[in-house]
Order: sequence, then structure tokens, then C-alpha cells
Amino acid sequence: MGNNSAIPAFDRNPTAQILQTAEESFLIDCGEGTQMQMTRYKIRRSKISRIFISHLHGDHYYGLIGLLTSMGLLGRTQEIHLHAPAALQEILYLQLNVADTKLPYQIHFHPIKAEGIIVDDKKISVECFSTKHRIECWGFIFREKKNPRKLNAERASFHEIPASFYDKLQQGHDYVNKQGITIANDAVTTAASKPKSYAFCADTIYDETLAAKVKEVDLLYHEATYLKDLHERAAARFHSTSVQAASIAKMGGVKKLIIGHFSSKYETLEAFLPEACEVFENTDLALEGVCYKI
Amino acid sequence: MGNNSAIPAFDRNPTAQILQTAEESFLIDCGEGTQMQMTRYKIRRSKISRIFISHLHGDHYYGLIGLLTSMGLLGRTQEIHLHAPAALQEILYLQLNVADTKLPYQIHFHPIKAEGIIVDDKKISVECFSTKHRIECWGFIFREKKNPRKLNAERASFHEIPASFYDKLQQGHDYVNKQGITIANDAVTTAASKPKSYAFCADTIYDETLAAKVKEVDLLYHEATYLKDLHERAAARFHSTSVQAASIAKMGGVKKLIIGHFSSKYETLEAFLPEACEVFENTDLALEGVCYKI
Repeated sequence: MGNNSAIPAFDRNPTAQILQTAEESFLIDCGEGTQMQMTRYKIRRSKISRIFISHLHGDHYYGLIGLLTSMGLLGRTQEIHLHAPAALQEILYLQLNVADTKLPYQIHFHPIKAEGIIVDDKKISVECFSTKHRIECWGFIFREKKNPRKLNAERASFHEIPASFYDKLQQGHDYVNKQGITIANDAVTTAASKPKSYAFCADTIYDETLAAKVKEVDLLYHEATYLKDLHERAAARFHSTSVQAASIAKMGGVKKLIIGHFSSKYETLEAFLPEACEVFENTDLALEGVCYKI
Repeated sequence: MGNNSAIPAFDRNPTAQILQTAEESFLIDCGEGTQMQMTRYKIRRSKISRIFISHLHGDHYYGLIGLLTSMGLLGRTQEIHLHAPAALQEILYLQLNVADTKLPYQIHFHPIKAEGIIVDDKKISVECFSTKHRIECWGFIFREKKNPRKLNAERASFHEIPASFYDKLQQGHDYVNKQGITIANDAVTTAASKPKSYAFCADTIYDETLAAKVKEVDLLYHEATYLKDLHERAAARFHSTSVQAASIAKMGGVKKLIIGHFSSKYETLEAFLPEACEVFENTDLALEGVCYKI
């Protein structure tokens, strides 16, 4: 919903992304205006179960208090989980308190303390890792867990396997019937789809250690605030260039790269992609309103 | 820049207005997205010398921290005056501190403590008054000071009045020349234009005491969150209706009324104006991007 860096410009907004799974949505960063962008792109707020904030520069969280307030005004009762640097909690509650606002839903605030797994749900895990930026900053890797094998219900029925055993079949077990005959698992199921992974690299200076952290993910988002000629400015401001983002993607052996967080100095973005693709071909620009399938 | 109430909806934004004088601009309230609206409507941020925040409900100030941060990133060095409820100061500095941001310009924070004159400049004064809302809330009246009389330079020169006396002429003094002859002031000047006034009534329940406070201003902005049939809901939420806003305008004998702060329940605004005009004819809708001349 936002692909720009610090100052909103040229109709580009500060960072905000929705990662959508079959069951729920995760909001990653929430710059000013994110709630308007959600309306614009018809994103269902009720589906958002967790919010992840990478760091406390304004272009990554100034829209959060407005979104949380509006969710309350819209009658949300479903709890929400918020993963962010610890200091955000005081900021949010101070703002809610001065407005005498009591939200009709619960916020579970999870301060990020160290690298490692921060969410371990049934179907997905989220790992955070630190990036090198001016202040405390976290990247996130979202990994699907091992998917169940696909059941061929017709064949299972033919072999008279009871439905109560279907879960086991999907986990890969063979079935032994009353006559003691073994029905091999792959006679009634087919292979599960491979679990997918997405790494959100937050704001960062060029840092080759990131390549190992995001190793072989299906999709990597890496910031590219500047074009390659401004690598000195990028380093001075703890940001990266198009070519540096692509180098991390290449070293990490990821499947696909998306670059974003473009500086407001660029009125158009056309120069970014050729520079990045020269190093890592399977690169796309992060464009607002576009859905990237993993 | 914003004519909507709490939740942004139907491309309408939360409250924000620019009051422009010949020399400077005042920003009145600053809902989320105000900095984007400023870009959209080509409002020069460098002209803004003072910001007035009526109260600390999010739809009136969530955009302020982003605007102040961006002003810094854009290299502003000119100081700015901020008039607001006291608690805003802690919120702003907490956010600047966690981001390790040092603004390159000075913010003079003036906590609003009581009704009365809060700005007394050479050409303009600003008076604040309390309104009845769920939390501490302030309205503002901006008054031009007495304008200087208009000098007819040709006639002043004909009477051989030295340029050093022109200021006095504009203040209304007669001139006595070396021969002891008096040149009457109105021989060389014409009457000043009448000082103008604008009252911003903030969020308020219907409150007839407001009529005296905004008496005879040239332009009154009064909130009209709901249409007249929802007067009970308006009262319960400390807001006003179209008809109530018009009644205050009529009672106060103001010249013109603008209504805004429309509820997100209304997809279109067409029903507001006929209701208000029935009580007070010289009424306009507050529409985003429109400039109202006082």
C-alpha cells in the first residue's frame, strides 16, 4: 500500500504491506495514510490478525494509531496482535488515553526483544531478524508450515478408509484395514504443495549478512531507497541501492525479489528495475495497489 | 483539506484547514493525511507560521507528527508556533525521541490554558474559546486588526508631504506643513477596508452560548456531523446537526456559515445544505480543495 520512503511524494505513500494467507492477513508496517489506502484497495480490515512494525521511524508507523482507532469506531471486537519495538506501546496508549478512548477489542502487544521465532501458529511461523539501520530495526520472515498431503477422497472411499483416518492420510500415514492389508499412503494422496516463504527486509544499510538470513525464500522484499550512483548517500543514511538489494537477493539464492522504499527525490521509478535486473533478473518494483502472488 | 469526521470515508479526509492571510498561513487542525492533502492542493508549507489544534481526538491531530517530521526532512529552519492542549507536547516529543529525530527548526509549544487572546500579532489576533465536547476542546477566532487607511500617493506628493510621514497618514493623522497649513487626512487617504474575522468552532454539542462567542464574525465554520433527524445521536456524541449549526450562525448574526465534519455514514452530502439554508441562508458546505474568500 506504500512504496515510498520518508516523505510522501508523487502519489507514493510510506511503507505498508498486506501479506495475505488463505485464512488471515498480516499488516507489515503502517505509514501515515495506510487506512485510506486500505479503503482504496478494498482490503478487509477484519481479516487482519497481526500487525508487524519494523522500526519507529514515522514513515513506518504514523498511520497505526489512526488505523487502530478506526477499527474500534467500526466496531471491531476481534483481538489483534501487535509485534513491534517496545517503545511503541507507550506512544499508542498515551494517544488513546488523552482521547479518553477505550477500544472495543483487545490489543496484544508483543515487544520484539531478540532475533528468532516470534509467532508459531498452526500453519505459519514468523521469525524476526535485526537489520542495520539508524535505530533498532527488524526484518520478518513468514514461513508456511509443512502443508498436508492432498487427499483423493474418491480413492480413499474405494479402499473403504474411514473419514476419521483422513487427517492421518494427509500427514502421510499408510492405512491398514481390518483384513490386515496395507493401503500405501501415495495410493490415496498426492504430494503437498511446497511451503512458501516471504522475507520483509525493512530498512537497512547494505549488509551481506542478510543474505544468509533470507536464504532461499520464495519472495524477498528488500529496500532500494536510491539508484546505484548514490551508494554513498545510501550508506550515510543507512539505506540501500537498487544494485545492493539485488546483490543480497543473488547471494541469498532467493526465488524472486521486490524492491521498494523509493526516495522522494525520484519522480519516476523506471531507472530502478534495469539496474537491479542486471544483478538479479527476477526482480519487480513494489507498486502500490499491486498484488504479488507467492 | 479535510471535511470528514472520525473515519476517513468516500475520499473525504479528517479535519484540516488553512487560513491564509496576505503574509502567512495558519493551519487549523491536522488529521491523518494532511501532508498529502497539502501536496495535492499545492499548499506552501513554508508559509505556515502557526498551527492550532482544537482537541486531541485523532481525526484532528494524527497527521501533525508526520507533517512536522516532513517539514524537517524538507529542510525547514523557520520556527513554528503550535497552540494546542498541553498533552500534545509529550506525544510529539516521545515520537521524535524514539526516532532519534532532531528537527532543524524550533517548535514553540503554547499550551492552551484558558479562554482569551492567545496570539496578539501586529496584524492579527487569535482568541480561543472552549466548546462542549467529550474532551477538552477549543474553538478559535481569528481577527484582523484595524487596517491602515489607503494612501493616495499622488495627492500626498502634490501637497508636498514627506514620505516619512506616510505611516502617520495611514494611521489617520492630519499633516501640518512648514507654512502652518493643515492638510486634512481624508484629502490624501481613503478609508481602510474593514477588518475581517473567522471563527472555527471545532467539535461541539449544540450550545447556544457559542452564538455570543462568535458574534458577527464574517465567516463561521461550525461542525455539522449529522443531518437534523439524528439530533439525539448528535447530542449523545457531543456533536451538532446541520440545523443546529445554522441556528448558531443565525443567533450570532454572522455573515456567512460553512458547515463540515460530516459523519462517515453519509456517502453524499447533498442533504446538508438545504437543511441548513432553511435556517440560515448564507451557508456553504466545507468541500475539500475549495478556497473560501473572507
